[in-house]
Amino acid sequence: MNKSVFYHAGCPVCISAEHDIINLIGANNVEIVHLGEDKGRIAEAELAGVKSVPALLTPNGHVLHINFGASMADVKS
Amino acid sequence: MNKSVFYHAGCPVCISAEHDIINLIGANNVEIVHLGEDKGRIAEAELAGVKSVPALLTPNGHVLHINFGASMADVKS
Repeated sequence: MNKSVFYHAGCPVCISAEHDIINLIGANNVEIVHLGEDKGRIAEAELAGVKSVPALLTPNGHVLHINFGASMADVKS
Repeated sequence: MNKSVFYHAGCPVCISAEHDIINLIGANNVEIVHLGEDKGRIAEAELAGVKSVPALLTPNGHVLHINFGASMADVKS
């Protein structure tokens, strides 16, 4: 895994953070996953340690939770 | 202002996030400010919108609060 993965759920906080992350690290270096539209990837995100969105999973497996937008429980409902 | 500024306070969460941010955006693209050692810059950080550390101030003035380490009140004490 060489790319980072940015997990979000479409909330305003998420979209703002998404733009900031893309500006900072480049669109080619990050996969964007919308958990609200792609619920099949929620389990993967939780396994990686994502507790809330938006969150950035780094290539070395660390999770950076950024400006709280929604909990994973909110994303599932 | 073209560089990002990473504000932290030396806590373990801060140091881990600092390494991740440097890996992601490059050491040349971010100024690291340790508010515990450089308390003269706390006012500047608060004015920029920093509520807790670690936090990344982007070149366009947005603040990304990352994995809660300490509140600004804790940093001042």
